[in-house]
Amino acid sequence: MRVGYAAGTRVSGDSMAKWVYTFGDGQAEGSAAMRDLLGGKGANLAEMAALGLPVPPGFTITAEVCTAYYDNEQTFPAGLREEVDAALAQIAGLTVRGFGDPANPLLVSVRSGSRASMPGMMDTVLNLGLNDETVEAIAGTADPRFAFDSYRRFIQMYADVVLGIDHHEFESILEIEREKKGVQEDTGLDADDWRNIVERYKALVEEMLEHPFPQDPMDQLWGAIGAVFNSWMNARAIAYRQLHDIPDEWGTAVNIQAMVFGNMGDTSATGVAFTRNPSTGEPELYGEFLVNAQGEDVVAGIRTPQDLTEDARKAAGADAPSLEALMPDAFHEFIGIANRLEAHYRDMQDMEFTIERGKLWMLQTRSGKRTAKAALKIAVDLANEGVISQDDAVRQVDPASLDQLLHPTLDPDADRSVIARGLPASPGAATGEIVFSSEDAEQAAREDRDVVLVRAETSPEDIHGMIAAKGILTARGGMTSHAAVVARGMGKPCVSGAGMVKIDAKAGTMSALGRSWSRGDVITIDGSSGEVMDGPVPMLQPELTGEFSTLMGWADSVRRLKIRANAETALDSSAARDFGAEGIGLSRTEHMFFEGERIMAVREMILAEDSDGRRAALEKILPMQRDDFIELFTIMQGFPVTVRLLDPPLHEFLPKTDEEIKVVAGSMQVDEARLRERVIALTEVNPMLGHRGCRLLITFPEIIEIQTRAILEAAAHVERITGVTVSPEIMVPLVSMASELEAVKAVIDDTAQTIESPVAYSVGTMIELPRAALRAQDIAEIAEFFSFGTNDLTQTAYGISRDDSASFLGAYQDAGLMEKDPFATLDTEGVGILMRVAVNEGRKVRDDLKLGLCGEHGGDPASIQFCEAIGLDYVSCSPYRVPIARLAAAQAALAMRDGA
Amino acid sequence: MRVGYAAGTRVSGDSMAKWVYTFGDGQAEGSAAMRDLLGGKGANLAEMAALGLPVPPGFTITAEVCTAYYDNEQTFPAGLREEVDAALAQIAGLTVRGFGDPANPLLVSVRSGSRASMPGMMDTVLNLGLNDETVEAIAGTADPRFAFDSYRRFIQMYADVVLGIDHHEFESILEIEREKKGVQEDTGLDADDWRNIVERYKALVEEMLEHPFPQDPMDQLWGAIGAVFNSWMNARAIAYRQLHDIPDEWGTAVNIQAMVFGNMGDTSATGVAFTRNPSTGEPELYGEFLVNAQGEDVVAGIRTPQDLTEDARKAAGADAPSLEALMPDAFHEFIGIANRLEAHYRDMQDMEFTIERGKLWMLQTRSGKRTAKAALKIAVDLANEGVISQDDAVRQVDPASLDQLLHPTLDPDADRSVIARGLPASPGAATGEIVFSSEDAEQAAREDRDVVLVRAETSPEDIHGMIAAKGILTARGGMTSHAAVVARGMGKPCVSGAGMVKIDAKAGTMSALGRSWSRGDVITIDGSSGEVMDGPVPMLQPELTGEFSTLMGWADSVRRLKIRANAETALDSSAARDFGAEGIGLSRTEHMFFEGERIMAVREMILAEDSDGRRAALEKILPMQRDDFIELFTIMQGFPVTVRLLDPPLHEFLPKTDEEIKVVAGSMQVDEARLRERVIALTEVNPMLGHRGCRLLITFPEIIEIQTRAILEAAAHVERITGVTVSPEIMVPLVSMASELEAVKAVIDDTAQTIESPVAYSVGTMIELPRAALRAQDIAEIAEFFSFGTNDLTQTAYGISRDDSASFLGAYQDAGLMEKDPFATLDTEGVGILMRVAVNEGRKVRDDLKLGLCGEHGGDPASIQFCEAIGLDYVSCSPYRVPIARLAAAQAALAMRDGA
Repeated sequence: MRVGYAAGTRVSGDSMAKWVYTFGDGQAEGSAAMRDLLGGKGANLAEMAALGLPVPPGFTITAEVCTAYYDNEQTFPAGLREEVDAALAQIAGLTVRGFGDPANPLLVSVRSGSRASMPGMMDTVLNLGLNDETVEAIAGTADPRFAFDSYRRFIQMYADVVLGIDHHEFESILEIEREKKGVQEDTGLDADDWRNIVERYKALVEEMLEHPFPQDPMDQLWGAIGAVFNSWMNARAIAYRQLHDIPDEWGTAVNIQAMVFGNMGDTSATGVAFTRNPSTGEPELYGEFLVNAQGEDVVAGIRTPQDLTEDARKAAGADAPSLEALMPDAFHEFIGIANRLEAHYRDMQDMEFTIERGKLWMLQTRSGKRTAKAALKIAVDLANEGVISQDDAVRQVDPASLDQLLHPTLDPDADRSVIARGLPASPGAATGEIVFSSEDAEQAAREDRDVVLVRAETSPEDIHGMIAAKGILTARGGMTSHAAVVARGMGKPCVSGAGMVKIDAKAGTMSALGRSWSRGDVITIDGSSGEVMDGPVPMLQPELTGEFSTLMGWADSVRRLKIRANAETALDSSAARDFGAEGIGLSRTEHMFFEGERIMAVREMILAEDSDGRRAALEKILPMQRDDFIELFTIMQGFPVTVRLLDPPLHEFLPKTDEEIKVVAGSMQVDEARLRERVIALTEVNPMLGHRGCRLLITFPEIIEIQTRAILEAAAHVERITGVTVSPEIMVPLVSMASELEAVKAVIDDTAQTIESPVAYSVGTMIELPRAALRAQDIAEIAEFFSFGTNDLTQTAYGISRDDSASFLGAYQDAGLMEKDPFATLDTEGVGILMRVAVNEGRKVRDDLKLGLCGEHGGDPASIQFCEAIGLDYVSCSPYRVPIARLAAAQAALAMRDGA
Repeated sequence: MRVGYAAGTRVSGDSMAKWVYTFGDGQAEGSAAMRDLLGGKGANLAEMAALGLPVPPGFTITAEVCTAYYDNEQTFPAGLREEVDAALAQIAGLTVRGFGDPANPLLVSVRSGSRASMPGMMDTVLNLGLNDETVEAIAGTADPRFAFDSYRRFIQMYADVVLGIDHHEFESILEIEREKKGVQEDTGLDADDWRNIVERYKALVEEMLEHPFPQDPMDQLWGAIGAVFNSWMNARAIAYRQLHDIPDEWGTAVNIQAMVFGNMGDTSATGVAFTRNPSTGEPELYGEFLVNAQGEDVVAGIRTPQDLTEDARKAAGADAPSLEALMPDAFHEFIGIANRLEAHYRDMQDMEFTIERGKLWMLQTRSGKRTAKAALKIAVDLANEGVISQDDAVRQVDPASLDQLLHPTLDPDADRSVIARGLPASPGAATGEIVFSSEDAEQAAREDRDVVLVRAETSPEDIHGMIAAKGILTARGGMTSHAAVVARGMGKPCVSGAGMVKIDAKAGTMSALGRSWSRGDVITIDGSSGEVMDGPVPMLQPELTGEFSTLMGWADSVRRLKIRANAETALDSSAARDFGAEGIGLSRTEHMFFEGERIMAVREMILAEDSDGRRAALEKILPMQRDDFIELFTIMQGFPVTVRLLDPPLHEFLPKTDEEIKVVAGSMQVDEARLRERVIALTEVNPMLGHRGCRLLITFPEIIEIQTRAILEAAAHVERITGVTVSPEIMVPLVSMASELEAVKAVIDDTAQTIESPVAYSVGTMIELPRAALRAQDIAEIAEFFSFGTNDLTQTAYGISRDDSASFLGAYQDAGLMEKDPFATLDTEGVGILMRVAVNEGRKVRDDLKLGLCGEHGGDPASIQFCEAIGLDYVSCSPYRVPIARLAAAQAALAMRDGA
């Protein structure tokens, strides 16, 4: 069963299709604008080549080939082979080498590159073109040790990626050779040793596959191209795409490029760099390099890399010389290129480069991933520098990333027992139990336990565990290691390269400073400082930078959607105001019935025999509810407050077990049997679809009366005290027919007539059932506002109870049956249709109908974009997501203006 | 709170409106076509007058006045008074009398008359215009005894209907007078006695109301008109409308007509008649009359009426002479009018007439209510007589009424202990506990107990009890008594006028033949024979008449929609075929897992650790399921069979209580704790929205495999044995996304590949979740058919769990919040929108997409009409409703052809 891949959605095998785009020597058939076709890496290589930057010549096989490949049972489209041959010939011409030429061989790298950045997700093959003949030519012109080292690297990589032989098999051969020779490091092995190892590697391949390692470079090439395409559908790529909402059908391009070598001795090097600091956003070149190394060595975190600039080296107190000091010419050329790229792309760039015997080559540039803090600073700085507009600055910051800034940090005054120190790889602090495997992390997440994932180093196989953990601690790897890059992308605290921590994953222990911790012991990590602490540490509310306010101001100036918060307590509503909420979109009144002594009165109401008895019980709650609303209205200073009338079914207020019933009956001084009878009578098969919301209000109109009085009396009181007009919006839940709303509104209006000091109020409804959306024209005759309750609307549209969905939704996501979790991001194609219908039909009847959303989707940027597109007036989300919503709403407004 | 009455939906107070329509003397402003405006009675009075039939002159105040009255806080619209004055003057002219003229007074009747027939529901005032002066004029020209008897009747009726004084108050005065005079019957009272009683009646009114009985005839008239309008909103009228789906906003007209008197001595009479027998449909004049009586006396059932024809009298073995014998001239004039009316209206007529001193007057005609059996016969006869077309015959029979024909009757060979005999008032048999009040009947219905309502006679106040009871037995009243008419309308068995039954409602006993029964004792009634029996009596399946087959044949010839049945057992599917089902639209396979030993294997499957274990357990069920399908396919003889894969959640197969768990663990020889753990793990908060349907199939694909094998192997077997092509339709439940169906279909198709003898099959899905309807275009890419599961679609669209709806839906219906139960009749305005979307979008993608409905709505005529309108291919209903569906589908096709 092939799932999640929409077959036949693209035209493939088109005879007019161009499958290959070449670049090199100041020319390129592609450009940065062709990202969808060439992938990010290919598009930017073409752009850099066209800019005249030093890019090794090469070509890109388009992502459409990947689509065609999967549409046609994993075969290549017609015409591709000829185009690849021609492009190879062009590289050969530019490099004055020949692919497979035993005298002067062209070696190439084969790399994936999709439309969206997927770091470390896809497979790569380097040094392709080496075989028993060409290796001798390299050995002759370069260095025999380098040649055979490259050859064995190629065999190992190719065998792993293309032939499916585990790399550990090769590592044990290497281990044996090192032991035989009595050396600890690969540097102790000479050319003959490597030649010997190559033979043993080839023998291993032949033994395992029952045919020899491919010697024909063209066979090697097509094997590698196929492997890249196949890697698009490997489990970790699928997992990454799910996490980052990347559709399967985008496919990946393949980049084939002449090799350049950073490992040709001490005048060679390889490195990565950002034009600005990706953690802080400071405008300083930031990066690392390794002398005499291949590119993957830096990212893999095996050797500790050196700083690029003298300033950075000094700041870090490092001894190893900077690139600035070691290779000043290449360094200054690189600085120039970096500045040019940032200005050209109008964004902070993340670049890869290699210096081959003193000659600088650019291997990659792309917009750099960054922390939220850095993103804010870079966007604001770039706008202030005049590189981009304020609107562009607003566009540039990912709203979801702000979450990082809004999470608690360690209290600086709190006692802390630091047990280790590593690199501050991803900001934020996390406390949790130690786990040593992704499996354990996932298990803990299912059990709602907070954990810190502790690993020697992470690999793409750890993605699931990193998602599940609250924070990540690694013993090895730099700021650009897998753990650091992925954690920053996720906005998850990470401390990397904490070498003093010794990990014994099998034993389930870690040690540092002579002490030991076991799985389940609690630690705290601070991804902003790199500190690791024993036990939990008190945390503080986040402090927001000046750039935050600046960018939020720019966002607010373009935003059309109002942002409200879902809040009912004084704490939440104060936080909401602090984060810039422009009102409360959903104040659930349930807690006003549950809290403290109130539940006793609620239970009295439930047990009452008639309306008078119920009213008498509810009267006890009235003054307390009124005080709650007085507090809320006072805090909100005249901003609108939407109060939802009581929603949950009555059985939620009653005891459940026999023991609880006994206790409650005792304290209420009622007959235990009678209480039990009532509990049983109120039990429901499907409480979510049962006697709740307006259904409860209609059968017990006393609740409407008492809540209306509490709301309106509180409003009158606050108006009298503060002089500010309070305009409460009374919201009726779970309406499916206009007649329900009409009935509840009649009681509200009748009750309002009895209030001593009249205040203006409006009555509206949740749109949270499909039928309500479909009958919006009737409902809008009565409702002054609609608030989309997208949680329940999603549950009823899908027929899925969130409480019960764990047993199948996980399997659905694993099998690719569901691209996105519809409870996190609005299902615009299904639930969204209902919303559009409701908006259109509702506004036809009442053109000033106020429209909002108060489900969890109110804090989700993609959902906010949809709300902007369908013309809602506001979204309401949890207080901590208000800034995210403000920024997302601004971006949505800009996108609408741009005609998106 | 005023509910259920849509204010402002009609333009009222329109200055151009005509409020009053006159008729009489061969002229009429209205006609039968103006039923909506004039009500049924008024429209037909106008029609009869225009035909030149003897109708007392009068006028009709339109139903729009009623609407205006309720729209304007119960005040009459401008201009009405002038129009009424003019119309009164016209009657006065035709009758040569004056309204309130002390010398020659005009007396009138005031009667309600709405668009739909509501027998006995509304209030009536007769003899209006009598006062202390005019009564003397009547006494002078007619007969003093008649004059004062009429006056006292008027006071009593007016006081009851208009002034709200209970009629029992008057009856005790009458009782006292009779005792004083020493007579038992009213006939023993003379003119002076009545004059005396009139004085006491007037004194009673004055005492109770503190002002005198109104003497001004115009005051009397406007009081009566207001009372008729007010009666539209009385509780029993509202209850009747709810039962018969009559909208509140139709309103009632008021008919004011010159009085004619059937109680002016032995040459006067009053009666009711049907042009054909309303019980059997036989073409014979059928009815009853009373000499020297007013019209209400016949319906009230106080005196036992006489037969109209000699034939009827002889057949009944009655002694009292027939009308034919008593008043031959009037009788023959009436026969002529009856024949003319039936031919004119092209339907069996139900007429009321009065003979005043030998002169025949027609007071009413309308299409007569009839039993289902009579309806069939009358429709087929009328078509065979050439009065109506075959299509009209199909149009004329109410499909829902067929239900009466399809219910069991008493087994003629069974022993029965007859305890009493009454009139066969409404056919069918019923067994139940005796109850003596409507309250008890309703209580029993709530407790799901079958009861027979036993009453001396019924009144409109008993409607609720009649709805709740299985059958009705009355001691008094004829075939046109309230009990008889209402029971026939409801299709409920009724024996009326069983005078030998003595009822003591207060004591809760009834007696007959010297024996006594108490409340709760079981009796059986046979509404077709009039017998009442002690205890339960075995019943037989219904036998259908030749007219049934004839009409069904005519229906089938115009019907477009196919009718299938929901059936899974051999019994049900055989019954379905007998009733003419053209396939099975829903075969639920749950029972194939529950039955007998199978549940053990299902439990093994649930407890299995892995796929192999589950498959091994399911293999045990395979041969049994295959046999089930072989039986089903064999019975259905090549008609399509839609098999739904397993739908319910797994916890339905597990024990619930600790005790059950212990027993099951013992018999399965598994660890009790492990079983309990699994039970707990599978417990769901909202099982209806949980892990069931395709969600279960996707997580346990072994179920799909085993069911597919059972279905396809059975189909192959039946094809081999019978030589008939079996084309099973495999249906996937609870799909909300195309990807789900795709995943399940892949397993079905893969499994089908492994079947030895391949058979053709199709794969489709239920559309039972709103999102499935909204994404029909995606789903139709994969599904070959859609079957609307309107039960779950209604539940999810409304967000109502039927299991939990009892706590509020009753209150909703009482408060008029819901016009119709959406689980009985499709909510075309909400759920229907989803269906339309699914049909349109689905057919866009796949123009031969087969579309059906398999919810309970498949047997509901109104819902079938909607299915026809949106172009479904078939509906599927319970076997016993198949004939109803066939007829309803034919009517829907005719309605579509007529452009409805």
